[in-house]
Amino acid sequence: MKKITTGILGAGRIGSLHGNNLLGMPGVHLKAIADPYIKLDDWSKRGVTPSLEPENVLEDPEIEAVLICSPTPTHAPLTEAAAKAGKHIFCEKPIDLDPDRIRRTIEVVEAAGVKLQVGFNRRFDPTFSRVRKSVVDGDIGEIHIVKITSRDPEAPPVEYVESSGGIFLDMTIHDFDMVRYLTGSEVEEVHAMGAVLVDPAIGEAGDVDTAVTTLKMANGALAVIENSRQAVYGYDQRVEVFGSKGSAEAANESANRVTISDRDGLRTDTPLYFFLQRYQASFLAELEAFFAAIRDDRQPPVGGRDGLMSVLVGIAANTSLIENRPVTVEPA
Amino acid sequence: MKKITTGILGAGRIGSLHGNNLLGMPGVHLKAIADPYIKLDDWSKRGVTPSLEPENVLEDPEIEAVLICSPTPTHAPLTEAAAKAGKHIFCEKPIDLDPDRIRRTIEVVEAAGVKLQVGFNRRFDPTFSRVRKSVVDGDIGEIHIVKITSRDPEAPPVEYVESSGGIFLDMTIHDFDMVRYLTGSEVEEVHAMGAVLVDPAIGEAGDVDTAVTTLKMANGALAVIENSRQAVYGYDQRVEVFGSKGSAEAANESANRVTISDRDGLRTDTPLYFFLQRYQASFLAELEAFFAAIRDDRQPPVGGRDGLMSVLVGIAANTSLIENRPVTVEPA
Amino acid sequence: MKKITTGILGAGRIGSLHGNNLLGMPGVHLKAIADPYIKLDDWSKRGVTPSLEPENVLEDPEIEAVLICSPTPTHAPLTEAAAKAGKHIFCEKPIDLDPDRIRRTIEVVEAAGVKLQVGFNRRFDPTFSRVRKSVVDGDIGEIHIVKITSRDPEAPPVEYVESSGGIFLDMTIHDFDMVRYLTGSEVEEVHAMGAVLVDPAIGEAGDVDTAVTTLKMANGALAVIENSRQAVYGYDQRVEVFGSKGSAEAANESANRVTISDRDGLRTDTPLYFFLQRYQASFLAELEAFFAAIRDDRQPPVGGRDGLMSVLVGIAANTSLIENRPVTVEPA
Amino acid sequence: MKKITTGILGAGRIGSLHGNNLLGMPGVHLKAIADPYIKLDDWSKRGVTPSLEPENVLEDPEIEAVLICSPTPTHAPLTEAAAKAGKHIFCEKPIDLDPDRIRRTIEVVEAAGVKLQVGFNRRFDPTFSRVRKSVVDGDIGEIHIVKITSRDPEAPPVEYVESSGGIFLDMTIHDFDMVRYLTGSEVEEVHAMGAVLVDPAIGEAGDVDTAVTTLKMANGALAVIENSRQAVYGYDQRVEVFGSKGSAEAANESANRVTISDRDGLRTDTPLYFFLQRYQASFLAELEAFFAAIRDDRQPPVGGRDGLMSVLVGIAANTSLIENRPVTVEPA
Repeated sequence: MKKITTGILGAGRIGSLHGNNLLGMPGVHLKAIADPYIKLDDWSKRGVTPSLEPENVLEDPEIEAVLICSPTPTHAPLTEAAAKAGKHIFCEKPIDLDPDRIRRTIEVVEAAGVKLQVGFNRRFDPTFSRVRKSVVDGDIGEIHIVKITSRDPEAPPVEYVESSGGIFLDMTIHDFDMVRYLTGSEVEEVHAMGAVLVDPAIGEAGDVDTAVTTLKMANGALAVIENSRQAVYGYDQRVEVFGSKGSAEAANESANRVTISDRDGLRTDTPLYFFLQRYQASFLAELEAFFAAIRDDRQPPVGGRDGLMSVLVGIAANTSLIENRPVTVEPA
Repeated sequence: MKKITTGILGAGRIGSLHGNNLLGMPGVHLKAIADPYIKLDDWSKRGVTPSLEPENVLEDPEIEAVLICSPTPTHAPLTEAAAKAGKHIFCEKPIDLDPDRIRRTIEVVEAAGVKLQVGFNRRFDPTFSRVRKSVVDGDIGEIHIVKITSRDPEAPPVEYVESSGGIFLDMTIHDFDMVRYLTGSEVEEVHAMGAVLVDPAIGEAGDVDTAVTTLKMANGALAVIENSRQAVYGYDQRVEVFGSKGSAEAANESANRVTISDRDGLRTDTPLYFFLQRYQASFLAELEAFFAAIRDDRQPPVGGRDGLMSVLVGIAANTSLIENRPVTVEPA
Repeated sequence: MKKITTGILGAGRIGSLHGNNLLGMPGVHLKAIADPYIKLDDWSKRGVTPSLEPENVLEDPEIEAVLICSPTPTHAPLTEAAAKAGKHIFCEKPIDLDPDRIRRTIEVVEAAGVKLQVGFNRRFDPTFSRVRKSVVDGDIGEIHIVKITSRDPEAPPVEYVESSGGIFLDMTIHDFDMVRYLTGSEVEEVHAMGAVLVDPAIGEAGDVDTAVTTLKMANGALAVIENSRQAVYGYDQRVEVFGSKGSAEAANESANRVTISDRDGLRTDTPLYFFLQRYQASFLAELEAFFAAIRDDRQPPVGGRDGLMSVLVGIAANTSLIENRPVTVEPA
Repeated sequence: MKKITTGILGAGRIGSLHGNNLLGMPGVHLKAIADPYIKLDDWSKRGVTPSLEPENVLEDPEIEAVLICSPTPTHAPLTEAAAKAGKHIFCEKPIDLDPDRIRRTIEVVEAAGVKLQVGFNRRFDPTFSRVRKSVVDGDIGEIHIVKITSRDPEAPPVEYVESSGGIFLDMTIHDFDMVRYLTGSEVEEVHAMGAVLVDPAIGEAGDVDTAVTTLKMANGALAVIENSRQAVYGYDQRVEVFGSKGSAEAANESANRVTISDRDGLRTDTPLYFFLQRYQASFLAELEAFFAAIRDDRQPPVGGRDGLMSVLVGIAANTSLIENRPVTVEPA
């Protein structure tokens, strides 16, 4: 198997996670990593050339593919620069919070003829992809209702919330993509209800921390997503697809399968703590899918249009919450 | 324990079920049953005086309490007649589909000084009352989200649908009451999404067969109910209450606890088929609670106001569906 | 449906339970109950003729069937007396602790041409009968291993233990019958290991309170039963059948299906407390089967030979424990 | 963290698995691998020096630790050679099938002052170590019964069975170690029942394919292990510890947490197929524990004596099966 020489832009939490995964991945050579702020000594010890400037990565003719893991505002410009440099691109979500900016970036990518995959990793989770398989296999029949529970174990710092674009573009965006993935259909209309029940500071920052969002899909199905910024028992990530022939339901993962019984009842441990634990396998699998798409010269499984659609749904949810009415989603 | 002499008005499915339960219930003497249409031979063999006229029951001075199990349009007039006759009343839900009619009935009952319990039996289900207990015990903390899954095993005949008052007043009404019961709070605002996905004839009758309804509660919590007229795997009746300290989740009941494993996977039997099986215990427990309230001279646990509130929420849901907007619930 | 007039001998805990079940059972008329020690006022109020002498029941020509619920030493003589009086007999287990005495009783019953059912109620439990069904349906294939967990919630008083015949004839006897029921095969060889881990007084009384018993079945399958006199989390009653095509596993029953999640983990309530709660449905179903056998004139599903076999296995287990060696079971 | 330079002897299935794990393990440098039969090109491409002769690894002064993954008959001589060469040793189980040979090997290791860990990987499984934790934490109280279900998905080729030492030394040996691990106590007496129910060829080879083994532990607890060479639904690996204060029960792992419901019931996928899938995490964790013991200069968590004890229990089980009697385990 020919090695695909790869670089990473951004060495923060998610960039490091992907970097570690690439170091152990057959058929991939992680050559360089760039980050203006983070100390990169560790990477050089492991044979990866560190750099302060993304240009050093983008201008390296050996590098065929880049992973864009830098802060959100840099996603669109770096994606365009990488496309113009002829690199295949894996970009963390969202490409941008402005749909027009995303549209322009997609055009640049298409003009360059390179591949673009967006980091909706949850599609690659073994449990959620098993649910999708049950739909594709016809076990569920025609889909009637999709139900997603998506609760974080604890609220982020309020400074993070302030620059996040709000709960719908920061957190629910993954769930919007999950509904699209599970149904294979687009969101037509959104209605959002929200509340500040976890942390008043989140309300003061102009956001909500608890939300129930209902969706009408193009294929006629209904969907409902509920979110909380704080589930004290840990990361709660469940989905259910219900249809004419049956239903598929995904339960949480935990670190072990032990039940302890005593006078007070039966107990099991809490679910895996947060996304780094819960989605470990999916972070690996999304990159394997990206490199397989390059190798086989086919479209990556989650493309620029997927990145755009979920942002459009998130924007409609924001409007719905503010204006307290159902809102039609803008077309791609 | 002094026996409470009791009569039943209406000997259809639900009247018979209650009648059988009363025959085995200590402290209750089922003396008479009235129904103009149904053959009552069986009842006379079992020592219960049959009658074609409700008056025969209502005018019997020995009878202290009546169960009103006749068709919905007769609930309000029979409740008023029973109240005026000085009988305590257990009335199947809904008292009426018109809130003003319910209000007048409640006034008559209050003027007569008799007790009135409305047949929201699900509150007495061992599983749902255990969820309520976890809320009352403080295990859940402040409630943030309530989630109800309520799916029937098969759609009723379209003639039934036509006279049912629509899915929200016929089916979701139980779920509205469940949200009120679990939260101890009132519904302030409703938004309903609906679709016809099970049976086009239901759509032609002006109703929907699939619905997702979101609620804002007076205490700030959000709630979401999803309904389907047809879950092919059986009656799906689950609730979840999520709050600041944890969550409580109620799973379905099945007829046995057996798992069969083979090459194809692990299998268990479907949930209990429908409400007669699933709520067997609750039908018994609600009557025990009714007679205990009479015996101890206290308010029954589900009163006329509870009957009114759920109808008001159902009417708001109907409006929301038709006008595609959130609707404020009319006060009691 | 013609009513079968019935009497009960013995009005203790199990006699009362059966009596209450009979009062609500269609097609059965409970006419009389006899007990020399217990106050029977309650029964006369409910229309059942009380008596101090079993003869009053046995000599009543209207009575077709009797339930023998008196202490174990009276089972054999009362069964014989009832048979000679031409009554069909439901006898609580064990018929006797002496196999020859059981054999003689069976001969008397057969000579009289009446029906005899022995009270191995667990065969009628919905969960265990579902396991048996999976075997009969061929889902399990050829049976390889049967595994039974049978633990009481608390140890009985030591006086009870002293006259019980030991753990194998008092407690495991139900499990021996269960293995025979699930496999449809006889026990050929027994090896028992025991220990006194719950209560030293049980050891001083010459018994064990913890046991692991392994069985070789005539059809080649192996079986293992483990017993404890005390499981602090409640009555633990599970079975598993494993074979060439798969396995069937029966979990415990609990009073509700609620899971509560908080920082410390996920919790459910303990299993149903003891046999009165756990086997409520099976006590009813075994009597329905008894009266159905009378009505249809066929053999009851659990007969005298079943009563004999489990005692023979229990005696072999006793010998095995004392002599610390595998012991062959004596033939019926 | 200083790197520990390491070599592997034996590049078959388990040697390759460990080798791949070492390549990604911080603080370890896999320098060399030796195998006389297997093509090692792949290893040289990954920077590991291949060799046909174990001496090349054992004589390399840079190498501090070796993993012995060669066939069982070479375990003892290679362990001794490695000890004499001053290397720390991780040796796959069993060290040998002859207890005296194991004893001599342990003496050589102790004389050399190097560390020896034996490959009982299941102790490091997250689920089983959670059960052990519940025991250590006191949640279970005094242990009364340990129960192990250990069934392979399919029987090995009969040639393998012939040279395996029999089911107790090949398969149950892991379960004997698990009972010792969970209880922290030694096996005193063994009784084994066996049968040939899966494959007659296994019987012709002088072995059984189905076994139930009961154990008396030094601390008074009882244990029971049941084994099958073929569970058609996949690898069945469960344990349960029951004691004075409660119980801990470990369920199987599966590849996802999805339940699919339809008219026929509820279904989940089968457990993980076999040990490579099921014990993936434990294979990694046992090596991390081995290198941590070297680094911190303390005894590895599973030593030579653990390797010896499980072989002694296996030999007693063999004798018990052949002579059909309980057998006392020979002391270490």
